[in-house]
Amino acid sequence: MNHQFDLDFTISRLGKPRFKSPLELSHVEGDFVSNFIEDGERILCDHSLSFIQPYIREGKEPPSFEAAGPRDKVFFNPTDVRAAIVSCGGLCPGINDVIRGIVLSLNFHYRVHEVYGIQYGYKGLVEASMLSPIHLTPKLVEDITSLGGTYLGSSRGPQSVEEMVDFLVKNRFNLLFTIGGDGTQRGALAISKEIERRKLAISVIGIPKTIDNDIRFIEKSFGFETAFSEGARVLKCAHAEANGAENGIAIVKLMGRQSGFLAATAALASGEANFVLIPEVPFDLDPPYGFLQALEDRILRRKHALVVVAEGAGQNLLAQEGEGEQRKDASGNLKLKDIGVFLKEKVAAHFTSSEIDVSIKYIDPSYIVRSLPSTPSDSMYCQQLAHNAVHAAMSGRTGLVVGYWQSAFTHIPIDAAVSSRKVLDTEGDLWLSVLQSTDQPRRMYNSTKPECEK
Amino acid sequence: MNHQFDLDFTISRLGKPRFKSPLELSHVEGDFVSNFIEDGERILCDHSLSFIQPYIREGKEPPSFEAAGPRDKVFFNPTDVRAAIVSCGGLCPGINDVIRGIVLSLNFHYRVHEVYGIQYGYKGLVEASMLSPIHLTPKLVEDITSLGGTYLGSSRGPQSVEEMVDFLVKNRFNLLFTIGGDGTQRGALAISKEIERRKLAISVIGIPKTIDNDIRFIEKSFGFETAFSEGARVLKCAHAEANGAENGIAIVKLMGRQSGFLAATAALASGEANFVLIPEVPFDLDPPYGFLQALEDRILRRKHALVVVAEGAGQNLLAQEGEGEQRKDASGNLKLKDIGVFLKEKVAAHFTSSEIDVSIKYIDPSYIVRSLPSTPSDSMYCQQLAHNAVHAAMSGRTGLVVGYWQSAFTHIPIDAAVSSRKVLDTEGDLWLSVLQSTDQPRRMYNSTKPECEK
Amino acid sequence: MNHQFDLDFTISRLGKPRFKSPLELSHVEGDFVSNFIEDGERILCDHSLSFIQPYIREGKEPPSFEAAGPRDKVFFNPTDVRAAIVSCGGLCPGINDVIRGIVLSLNFHYRVHEVYGIQYGYKGLVEASMLSPIHLTPKLVEDITSLGGTYLGSSRGPQSVEEMVDFLVKNRFNLLFTIGGDGTQRGALAISKEIERRKLAISVIGIPKTIDNDIRFIEKSFGFETAFSEGARVLKCAHAEANGAENGIAIVKLMGRQSGFLAATAALASGEANFVLIPEVPFDLDPPYGFLQALEDRILRRKHALVVVAEGAGQNLLAQEGEGEQRKDASGNLKLKDIGVFLKEKVAAHFTSSEIDVSIKYIDPSYIVRSLPSTPSDSMYCQQLAHNAVHAAMSGRTGLVVGYWQSAFTHIPIDAAVSSRKVLDTEGDLWLSVLQSTDQPRRMYNSTKPECEK
Amino acid sequence: MNHQFDLDFTISRLGKPRFKSPLELSHVEGDFVSNFIEDGERILCDHSLSFIQPYIREGKEPPSFEAAGPRDKVFFNPTDVRAAIVSCGGLCPGINDVIRGIVLSLNFHYRVHEVYGIQYGYKGLVEASMLSPIHLTPKLVEDITSLGGTYLGSSRGPQSVEEMVDFLVKNRFNLLFTIGGDGTQRGALAISKEIERRKLAISVIGIPKTIDNDIRFIEKSFGFETAFSEGARVLKCAHAEANGAENGIAIVKLMGRQSGFLAATAALASGEANFVLIPEVPFDLDPPYGFLQALEDRILRRKHALVVVAEGAGQNLLAQEGEGEQRKDASGNLKLKDIGVFLKEKVAAHFTSSEIDVSIKYIDPSYIVRSLPSTPSDSMYCQQLAHNAVHAAMSGRTGLVVGYWQSAFTHIPIDAAVSSRKVLDTEGDLWLSVLQSTDQPRRMYNSTKPECEK
Repeated sequence: MNHQFDLDFTISRLGKPRFKSPLELSHVEGDFVSNFIEDGERILCDHSLSFIQPYIREGKEPPSFEAAGPRDKVFFNPTDVRAAIVSCGGLCPGINDVIRGIVLSLNFHYRVHEVYGIQYGYKGLVEASMLSPIHLTPKLVEDITSLGGTYLGSSRGPQSVEEMVDFLVKNRFNLLFTIGGDGTQRGALAISKEIERRKLAISVIGIPKTIDNDIRFIEKSFGFETAFSEGARVLKCAHAEANGAENGIAIVKLMGRQSGFLAATAALASGEANFVLIPEVPFDLDPPYGFLQALEDRILRRKHALVVVAEGAGQNLLAQEGEGEQRKDASGNLKLKDIGVFLKEKVAAHFTSSEIDVSIKYIDPSYIVRSLPSTPSDSMYCQQLAHNAVHAAMSGRTGLVVGYWQSAFTHIPIDAAVSSRKVLDTEGDLWLSVLQSTDQPRRMYNSTKPECEK
Repeated sequence: MNHQFDLDFTISRLGKPRFKSPLELSHVEGDFVSNFIEDGERILCDHSLSFIQPYIREGKEPPSFEAAGPRDKVFFNPTDVRAAIVSCGGLCPGINDVIRGIVLSLNFHYRVHEVYGIQYGYKGLVEASMLSPIHLTPKLVEDITSLGGTYLGSSRGPQSVEEMVDFLVKNRFNLLFTIGGDGTQRGALAISKEIERRKLAISVIGIPKTIDNDIRFIEKSFGFETAFSEGARVLKCAHAEANGAENGIAIVKLMGRQSGFLAATAALASGEANFVLIPEVPFDLDPPYGFLQALEDRILRRKHALVVVAEGAGQNLLAQEGEGEQRKDASGNLKLKDIGVFLKEKVAAHFTSSEIDVSIKYIDPSYIVRSLPSTPSDSMYCQQLAHNAVHAAMSGRTGLVVGYWQSAFTHIPIDAAVSSRKVLDTEGDLWLSVLQSTDQPRRMYNSTKPECEK
Repeated sequence: MNHQFDLDFTISRLGKPRFKSPLELSHVEGDFVSNFIEDGERILCDHSLSFIQPYIREGKEPPSFEAAGPRDKVFFNPTDVRAAIVSCGGLCPGINDVIRGIVLSLNFHYRVHEVYGIQYGYKGLVEASMLSPIHLTPKLVEDITSLGGTYLGSSRGPQSVEEMVDFLVKNRFNLLFTIGGDGTQRGALAISKEIERRKLAISVIGIPKTIDNDIRFIEKSFGFETAFSEGARVLKCAHAEANGAENGIAIVKLMGRQSGFLAATAALASGEANFVLIPEVPFDLDPPYGFLQALEDRILRRKHALVVVAEGAGQNLLAQEGEGEQRKDASGNLKLKDIGVFLKEKVAAHFTSSEIDVSIKYIDPSYIVRSLPSTPSDSMYCQQLAHNAVHAAMSGRTGLVVGYWQSAFTHIPIDAAVSSRKVLDTEGDLWLSVLQSTDQPRRMYNSTKPECEK
Repeated sequence: MNHQFDLDFTISRLGKPRFKSPLELSHVEGDFVSNFIEDGERILCDHSLSFIQPYIREGKEPPSFEAAGPRDKVFFNPTDVRAAIVSCGGLCPGINDVIRGIVLSLNFHYRVHEVYGIQYGYKGLVEASMLSPIHLTPKLVEDITSLGGTYLGSSRGPQSVEEMVDFLVKNRFNLLFTIGGDGTQRGALAISKEIERRKLAISVIGIPKTIDNDIRFIEKSFGFETAFSEGARVLKCAHAEANGAENGIAIVKLMGRQSGFLAATAALASGEANFVLIPEVPFDLDPPYGFLQALEDRILRRKHALVVVAEGAGQNLLAQEGEGEQRKDASGNLKLKDIGVFLKEKVAAHFTSSEIDVSIKYIDPSYIVRSLPSTPSDSMYCQQLAHNAVHAAMSGRTGLVVGYWQSAFTHIPIDAAVSSRKVLDTEGDLWLSVLQSTDQPRRMYNSTKPECEK
């Protein structure tokens, strides 16, 4: 059997739901009224027949995730609820849609009117920062979705878990929504454990945010589509630059520290990329298989080339070059050496020594892909995440993030979600489609065995 | 057990694949090279645990779809292949992406250079029309994705199946890609049956196209995201109109003859709709539950309202009014009476009789939502569909459409795909999210039992 | 001499400016600090040499407009100022940019903090409507430019001039900014005359708004570029529709009641229009010169055609058909018969009788072109108009609209601006460019002499 | 009198126009048919009354530009014409619109069908490069406007004037359209002089292209609006980044080597910039007036700041720092030191020493602003430039660029256009509007006299 899903997907609860949900849904099919989610509803971890077959043979239940959605009984009495929303880490399109979605859902669906925004990330959750929570009314958040960024501000880096729980208690918050990435959700997990230790009835629900789309068990993170759409737009510009000069080479760096989803997806969506370099696939620069010769071949054949490189690609090459030791930023993320600039210099040097006149354009859109307002599709998705987060919180669940997996909304225990990073499956159909849409050799590294087998 | 999937999902084949695929993929995990799809790979029809449980109990295999993707053996010798592409029916964003994707995949992946475009739909597949196929080279189709519409032209209505097969034979085409909706794919099925009857080795592969997103077993049809994104953009304009006048009411009609996907999704994505009327949910105009009173309540409370109505909604109301008999268009689709104009008049009459001064703006974006170029996300999706269609054709499969179901690309026998229309599940989470994002009552019709039970 | 400019362009003033401007500008060239506008600065009404030559010969001063901009002395003491902003009539992109621009300029440049928004147009300027002015702070209006429409709401139709002046007096407003079209500015003129009659020190400054771009002495009205850009986008869609069918004809109706600026400019910007029908140029349907035969010729030659028709075009044809008498809307504008639908029917009938199979798509984007947020270029222009309106008001000028003429910002007395409508010069270069970019015959009407000479 | 226009604006001609224009225009007002331009039509160099007054007093004719447009007689016999189009230098939005416009105008207006595209700039105009001209048919260029870049390719750097004229002669080209900037037009001037020397009848017409908008007597260069619109979009992203962190500072570098038009206009259009640094206005970093203290004041007051810096700003500061000697690129342009990175480092150092925690985001959109397809407004403008270039060429004029000045299309002799660069008038209304829309002090440099007076 597949061990990828050998984790505990049980969701914690604060206690037995005691109140009738204010949502006027039904349990009946065919009455044109949407139904409550029954508590046993679960979504398989893998929808392939081959995954399920051994379980059928053994008569065992395959691993699955709890389905997200509204329950007919809720844990909290709406009139007692005071909710807090916090956004942490780097920007991502759609944060404001998530904030607005939570505020509107609490107000209009659950009649909870005490909803507050924590300023500047976890920093605003400690008394000492003297940042007061903002009362978020439907009127106040009505139009924030037309803006990029986060209405609440954000920050990086951890805060004292004790102080944050003290703050929640002091302000009588009993729902906490944490919009953030890996680090943020680890923080949320710590908060929820401290809450448990103190035997408090405070629900902590995460909405996973990552421009890199690298959170486990989350098929697609919110804002990712906006980001890769903008990435594709930039790649079309870069293609125009490459194409506009004889032997024009455009090199575009896109975000993606440990995974190449953004680079790969933007490349595919643009339909113009000729090389896509991602962290998941090692590559050499030099013969026998290296990138530089492949690029030269392409230039001689087609007179232009568009190279897309993920921020975290080719770290082995940088290490070889001894580009100084690595440092960490305020969130503890490794500061990566700049592969884009490195590649640009290597390409320039290569063609100089080959005596081929080329015109190199280096483009780093950097923050632009992440600070735009969300596309309509992302905006819709954000609302659905927000609604499901609110349903989960009101039902008394805690310590989970809202997931999306094979087209279904799910509940994922935070510790499962942060147990490792999702990376692009280089055996799967996305990477195949990328390779198919480019001109790049199936292999650009030199080793008798693939690295993973060594 | 669930009988929704009681259909035969077996895929027809022209014969045993005889040639090694020119794609240089592998069968090994971990070599950084994408893998061929093994022939037994299948995707479950439903990924919910409750769906799978009875099969586990009984030790039976649950219903599933064949997985799409490249096979290591192909039926056709690439040098013998002559492929034809035809686009039929109404426009849809992304047709050009599909065309380009097929041309590039055949040329670059399978080294098939004889690819032709049939002009103006099935009409171009009959000799008598004197429309010559266009030789589609990679150079020719390179930039067509920046344009809306179809590079090949389209037409509605059936042609003689015999004449079309004669045409294929005469022009020595052995692959036929049909980009089109329900009617087109029924035509493709008829063609493939006639081919079978004549014992020809011609593969017919459909790429389902529907702006209404209503083809069965296709979770999301290509171009749908572009369409609802534009729909959402129009709804934001309409909201500005409603909001810009005291008691402003904007009514927007969106496409959707038998299903409300476009109206519902655009409404949710816009975040601004207050009422969403779709074919799947009956509604009354008059008391006790009718729409007009609900609208009045909203206007008195909030001073503006945005109403979204799908083309096919409220047909019962139109029928009651005796709005003349129904006619059919060239494709045999029923010509629907115009619910948008009808509603606008009823709303105007209601507020006149209520003596409430309102300002009504009626907006019908009509063809605009379907003739735009595709968004980056749709463009990517179209390429993936095109690649999978080419893989299916080269492998000798026939009589199928490429499906997408719970995030996986699949093969669906055409007769299964056209067996009935997909409609919006009013018990499911999309409709719930729509209701949650609007102000509309859970129920706007008067009947002791829901219509479906009567 | 040219009599087009035989009007009095003298600007009224409330009195002598008494206070030093809080703007820290200079009177010196070359100090890198922008200069105040000197009171005698004027802009010629026409920049062609031939216009100026007779004045040179006679040694006379040619007609000119007062230049807009900041003066070093202001009439109002900033601490005494209470400003009101009102938006009237139909929507137009950029209203919110103008509102924001006025609020920010008053607050940050002139330190005026008492700025109020009048709700729902002139209606909000009469006591009886019980609509309270909204205090507009920089914080409140900060992000309104990302939205279409008007933050203040609008309305059509006149109100009692006496009651409006009473309202201004009662609320101690001494600046009134009127954002609106022809009718609105006539209202503003009436208000300013009543103010003069009562010997009050209230400045009334208009910012001309018209989606039709038809206000005299205003080269380009704000929002017009956004509108024609969207118009061009719709025309590209329509072109895809026409092009996507054999003998496809797309007919698009665009706003423009008495002038064809929007239709002509969108057509030119799209680069795809084949016929452009505007109010300024009469056309026949029937032989010898009529439109229908020209359209048929095009269809037979090219198999598709895109027809753009302005709302107000071909009124003579409608009149001939006796399409019922004309009515007026709440603003007193004539309700035009629908030329778009009329044309669509005539085209259909023509090809039926010609026995040519055509596919006709009729598209009416209606309000969509006017309710979008402004483009960056329009946004910039709106800010410049707003700043100049504030400078004019603070200087004690009144009864003027801010104009833009041959690339300069000017002051135009309201009565000059509303003296007649601007129409497209069919002898000039815009219309020439339009004709050059289409396929349409130079002449599509039958008369031995042009209508204007009869 | 103003000496800014003390240049010879006389346009050279190849000879007397001998043929009737194929354009069916008229000379009559009021016949609804656009008129030919009469040869004496001219546009004043300045439309301000004060500019014209001394000429009126002295009875002299003020300086003026020849008006562009179609003439009723043409120099070339259309059947003899072979036209070449070349695009040089960096990309700019709209090049493809200009190319298409020239091709369509020659074909459809003047019935000239021999139109060729020169590949890769002037390089393609020398035999040795072995780059064949491409026959540009209307069909071929039909859809190129949906793409950024240049369909013909471009290159930098000069070629032998003699060889280029040889090439024109050998290929029997008698019209040459040069799309390019300052350097390109100097080249065009040299070509036209060599043509004159050889007594050839070849017309050379320039269409000025500059993303910096810095060509003299050209109010607005094509593509500039697209560029600043994208700049404004990036600035909104940057604002979201600045605003999303406590004490967030975003620094955006925009193109503009010797002029700040792009930075200033994008800043104004975005409505979000707090500091705008351009080459035309010197600034210090350090006290008493320096930028760093002004930035600190803003951060302490508002907690975020958006800084826009033009590529060529602050060169004096870089010089002081002795940042190495300056180099030139292939076109002979000075390679500027990178002010953006420099500024980012200085800002970081300043706040470190001030012990204020800030979050700095540096964004350099680089080529993105110039490789997009044109906006509808730019697209329209490009067509008008193209039409006027064709009219000028067919009339036998030569050695000119098509200008646009105070809203009129003009002819400018190339030597006048390249006599000096246009810079932003820091005394004028654009810079005033920019200052008004930001928070920046009127003065950020320390000198008793402005630099220009020293």
